[in-house]
Amino acid sequence: MIVLYHCVAARSFRPLWALEELGLPYQLNMLAFPPRVASRDYLQQNPLGTVPLLVDGAVRMTESAAICHYLGEKHGPSDLVVRPEEADFGAFLNWLHFGEATLTFPQTIVLRYERFEPAGRKLPQAVADYRRWFLGRLRTLEPILAVRSDMCAGRFTMADISIGYALLLAAHLGFEPEFPPAVRDYWLRLRERPAFLRARAAETAAANAQGVSPVPAPLLEP
Amino acid sequence: MIVLYHCVAARSFRPLWALEELGLPYQLNMLAFPPRVASRDYLQQNPLGTVPLLVDGAVRMTESAAICHYLGEKHGPSDLVVRPEEADFGAFLNWLHFGEATLTFPQTIVLRYERFEPAGRKLPQAVADYRRWFLGRLRTLEPILAVRSDMCAGRFTMADISIGYALLLAAHLGFEPEFPPAVRDYWLRLRERPAFLRARAAETAAANAQGVSPVPAPLLEP
Repeated sequence: MIVLYHCVAARSFRPLWALEELGLPYQLNMLAFPPRVASRDYLQQNPLGTVPLLVDGAVRMTESAAICHYLGEKHGPSDLVVRPEEADFGAFLNWLHFGEATLTFPQTIVLRYERFEPAGRKLPQAVADYRRWFLGRLRTLEPILAVRSDMCAGRFTMADISIGYALLLAAHLGFEPEFPPAVRDYWLRLRERPAFLRARAAETAAANAQGVSPVPAPLLEP
Repeated sequence: MIVLYHCVAARSFRPLWALEELGLPYQLNMLAFPPRVASRDYLQQNPLGTVPLLVDGAVRMTESAAICHYLGEKHGPSDLVVRPEEADFGAFLNWLHFGEATLTFPQTIVLRYERFEPAGRKLPQAVADYRRWFLGRLRTLEPILAVRSDMCAGRFTMADISIGYALLLAAHLGFEPEFPPAVRDYWLRLRERPAFLRARAAETAAANAQGVSPVPAPLLEP
């Protein structure tokens, strides 16, 4: 059985969403946020102290976008992965990485210095810098999404999960009013997908069952 | 002909190194750093204003770790890529992403607020926070590299290029004395690889030929 360690609305939502899109059985282990502090025992499972951690037999992975790709290949075949023979293979890999490396990390700077750090350590300049940085990068998706409904290959793929999570986080951070129009429409479509809704319901149910707050981690104050 | 847009010692060193490992012909277009400011025309090629940009026929990619994976698949077959049938496929994807998303982005925060921002906008707290963040994540590689010479699959792969570039950047930032011992030995092996040395020579030669400073971008002051 695949085991996923997850905090509500954290990056580990990507593999959770992917598992629901693939229709795979899994065990969802919820952790309070931040797991490094809230669940010291977890460091024995994942010395990074981060989520996600995916355990699939002998395979252990911690990078959320990589896990989506892995699941689609190892537990496929699935159209959620674009293969090397397809014209959009390069675009698929690019957007899969872009969702995390380019669109998610800057938001974690905003989160940290606007919300998680105590009063004397907040950094409004860094918050403003990386808010602008994120929104600038996000705008480059607009011409693509103005002419197609998914990021690549003419269908919904793991690349959309990678970017979709960055938009979920951005919505939690209050950036939604500044999404360009086609990006906004894309986000509204993504969040209505049945597998997205199942993943949201699964994390809430598991949080309640396991005694973890169901409040999304990005909204928590320290 | 594959075309790579590159700034000396920037993330685009990953695909340059990968091209040299693969022995592929390529055209190297050097840009002054930061390209967004120094080469306004470049925005027509890449609206993000970032390097790398790889152009391979109709394929255009901007994420450095994704490009390495793409090149190894599309211009292989190559042992630089780990395939889904192999036991370390998940580890390969994980370290490929980890090198950029987890080990490189924190260093760009250090770079920005220690070196690139003007005097009134430097943020010593963010520099200290993300220096510590990077070194903490880096330490999690130590137990792996203490017992093997490459990150996965028992051979040098694109995952090593992804992590190796993070170490190159860290060396430029002066973090090398704090590399744990096995990470340090790994870095010393990586930087002696013939393809690594050819890539370094290629960027210097192209910079000189194209009238761009050969000083590594991470060392530049604004």
